[in-house]
Amino acid sequence: MKNNKKGLFISFEGIDGCGKTTQIELLKKYLIEKNYEIIVTLEPGGCDIGKKLREILLFNKGFVSDVAEMFLYLADRAQHIEEIVEKNVNEGRIVLCDRCIDSTVAYQGYGRKGNIEQINILNDIATKGIKPDLTIIFDVDLETAQERVGNTKDRMEKEGFEFHKRVKEGYLEIAKKYPDRIKVINSNQKIDKVFSDLKEIIDKVI
Amino acid sequence: MKNNKKGLFISFEGIDGCGKTTQIELLKKYLIEKNYEIIVTLEPGGCDIGKKLREILLFNKGFVSDVAEMFLYLADRAQHIEEIVEKNVNEGRIVLCDRCIDSTVAYQGYGRKGNIEQINILNDIATKGIKPDLTIIFDVDLETAQERVGNTKDRMEKEGFEFHKRVKEGYLEIAKKYPDRIKVINSNQKIDKVFSDLKEIIDKVI
Repeated sequence: MKNNKKGLFISFEGIDGCGKTTQIELLKKYLIEKNYEIIVTLEPGGCDIGKKLREILLFNKGFVSDVAEMFLYLADRAQHIEEIVEKNVNEGRIVLCDRCIDSTVAYQGYGRKGNIEQINILNDIATKGIKPDLTIIFDVDLETAQERVGNTKDRMEKEGFEFHKRVKEGYLEIAKKYPDRIKVINSNQKIDKVFSDLKEIIDKVI
Repeated sequence: MKNNKKGLFISFEGIDGCGKTTQIELLKKYLIEKNYEIIVTLEPGGCDIGKKLREILLFNKGFVSDVAEMFLYLADRAQHIEEIVEKNVNEGRIVLCDRCIDSTVAYQGYGRKGNIEQINILNDIATKGIKPDLTIIFDVDLETAQERVGNTKDRMEKEGFEFHKRVKEGYLEIAKKYPDRIKVINSNQKIDKVFSDLKEIIDKVI
């Protein structure tokens, strides 16, 4: 942990099927054994309002405009950062967050070909400038990811191969832009090897 | 109607209890009698997704962050403009919309003391630059408005006197900035007189 009473805010990113959720669970256990207080949360849906927005964002049957989609992710983020993340970090906990600001850049920016500079500004408005102390991107081949996702797909997962290719490549572009904050792990490897790579990074910051 | 096949987009603004809804209904009847095709709609809640957002915005029991609130109004607007307003105007109808861009400036800007220049930019992103052809602000004394609202108040109506005072004054500031688009009607007058003022403005644009 850093040399103050504050906790740590770590976000986990990558395309669906990259293994984020599994690795977050492994990390949670690892950190609890080390006596850290851990909060596992996610976007969208990490707070009560967010749960309702997640339902629209991932399971709405009808048309959702690209701009409305972006603002819904931002609304979820604004509420989640203020209600859950900021509070817990200030109380000394380590917050492990499944998706955050970089998802909007990767999916609504690179995936939907939105205005990335604009999304960065909107992310800053949503988070009031709060950024994860550390972000892990799990980089995985598209074929492997699609196999892992299987056939029960949500609204975003249903987007085609080209969309997810842009998102995957977008994540690597983002990682290049913020090398201090973001670390990329090869997630084509076996679960144990991915986790040992993850531990190596985490051990340096706690 | 303008000299093209396109319809008209008219928004109605003012603090709660200003008489908007009554006047929109009167205007709808008046215009239908003149053989115009009329769509009456509202923000938030003019489309399916918007109905779910309206529920959060006006009736959520717990804490809603100011920034999340703003993004939810913008998400509703983006979806509503694309799904309902733009389509109907392009098909030649007159769209009468209960609240639109100016509500966010008045409530989240003046009311909540948000950044008004930022809200203007965000409104432009939400609407892709589409603005009402005409906006009517019904200006009413705070005491009269509160009497009309009564005791069953939604989340926004429950805000105090000072908040609604800022919103009312904010509306008048907005009207001063956009005199071509926005007309103010004194809504302390009797319903018939307000409607005759409204007709006078409308007859000039149809």
